[in-house]
Amino acid sequence: MAEKEKISNRDKALFEAGIKLGALYHQFIGTPVSAETVEDLEKTIERSVSLQPWVRRVLVKIDREKVRKSENKKKFQYCELSNEMLDVKVVVRYEAVEVHARVKYEEEMDYPLMRVEKVK
Amino acid sequence: MAEKEKISNRDKALFEAGIKLGALYHQFIGTPVSAETVEDLEKTIERSVSLQPWVRRVLVKIDREKVRKSENKKKFQYCELSNEMLDVKVVVRYEAVEVHARVKYEEEMDYPLMRVEKVK
Amino acid sequence: MAEKEKISNRDKALFEAGIKLGALYHQFIGTPVSAETVEDLEKTIERSVSLQPWVRRVLVKIDREKVRKSENKKKFQYCELSNEMLDVKVVVRYEAVEVHARVKYEEEMDYPLMRVEKVK
Amino acid sequence: MAEKEKISNRDKALFEAGIKLGALYHQFIGTPVSAETVEDLEKTIERSVSLQPWVRRVLVKIDREKVRKSENKKKFQYCELSNEMLDVKVVVRYEAVEVHARVKYEEEMDYPLMRVEKVK
Repeated sequence: MAEKEKISNRDKALFEAGIKLGALYHQFIGTPVSAETVEDLEKTIERSVSLQPWVRRVLVKIDREKVRKSENKKKFQYCELSNEMLDVKVVVRYEAVEVHARVKYEEEMDYPLMRVEKVK
Repeated sequence: MAEKEKISNRDKALFEAGIKLGALYHQFIGTPVSAETVEDLEKTIERSVSLQPWVRRVLVKIDREKVRKSENKKKFQYCELSNEMLDVKVVVRYEAVEVHARVKYEEEMDYPLMRVEKVK
Repeated sequence: MAEKEKISNRDKALFEAGIKLGALYHQFIGTPVSAETVEDLEKTIERSVSLQPWVRRVLVKIDREKVRKSENKKKFQYCELSNEMLDVKVVVRYEAVEVHARVKYEEEMDYPLMRVEKVK
Repeated sequence: MAEKEKISNRDKALFEAGIKLGALYHQFIGTPVSAETVEDLEKTIERSVSLQPWVRRVLVKIDREKVRKSENKKKFQYCELSNEMLDVKVVVRYEAVEVHARVKYEEEMDYPLMRVEKVK
């Protein structure tokens, strides 16, 4: 097998980081949330994602300003967790390789961009 | 319009109870969970569903025995919330009508049966 | 048991209609879609929901205009199925009772309203 | 920045492959399916995932044997798409790097294992 085709620990760490972001995004988007429950939901997502293999740390921030605005536009005082509200950092460690990845909504792109911030 | 076609408060209460069960089931199934996070997840589902219109009470029970067994079958110490683990009671009130509904896995049917337990 | 507490076929039909709308909404929201795949996705949702108990008919309309606009705002030529795009009619029949229910986004409310349109 | 911290095209390709598998898994698990709709659902998942950035090919196989068995255990002739039924191969290309990744249920592990099969 050529060098290029060998799958390294670094490769696996990056692959695993991608899995976590893709999974949490499609699992939790749509969850009913309000200004009162937002902190609780952040913690639950963090604890839930932390259970998965190779995850070292998870930091979830849900934009309270957007939750509040979205609540107020509606007849009922709650909204659904949407991609614009979400900023999640995940640190995955596979053997000696640590990957810091993040999903965060980018206003100009109107897109919840997932990216690798650091590999070490 | 014939009597039969009028939509009563009772009709609406039953319809709303169905919505809540269908929605929570498809929202939360698949969430990573372990014996350590199960209580936290129950509370988060309760708080989240309680935000929705006409909901008065929500009681979520996740079967710890099944979570533990499912964890142990796996290489990694967690599992995904599945329909066999879930027992949720929702009380919906629309005007003067209160509906008690429940989703609970029925072993003999191998099915997460949703049913109306009481209307008052 | 008082008359009020008896659960009729009509009650069950309404409850089942609610289940279907709540379930499909949280199952399919977030699915990647484009102008090219929108018709295919409509059919798949219809066929999938039709499998569930008591469902007689399902009609799914995804707003092509909104799909196209949402695509064009983004760097990549696709978007995710969102509540603003969705208009679904479900007919449920339980014994002799037929319920026509619908979920459709209401602009003024900024809300995907679920309602009973007819009982017969 | 040290060599190790630079993020290469290979890194990005692996990360993107992980995202696709994590996302599709949590998006489509739970969808009602039967022997009659299984092929249609496979095609819809393939077309949907193919819309996402950097995806070159998607091959979805849903285990018909398991769908049929699961249907027969139930009162109603359908089941929900579950992790045991799913085998998906995704080819992602980021610049000159192509990653072949797969999610497939592993009986011995009772786990839907996601892995990199090839990088070239």
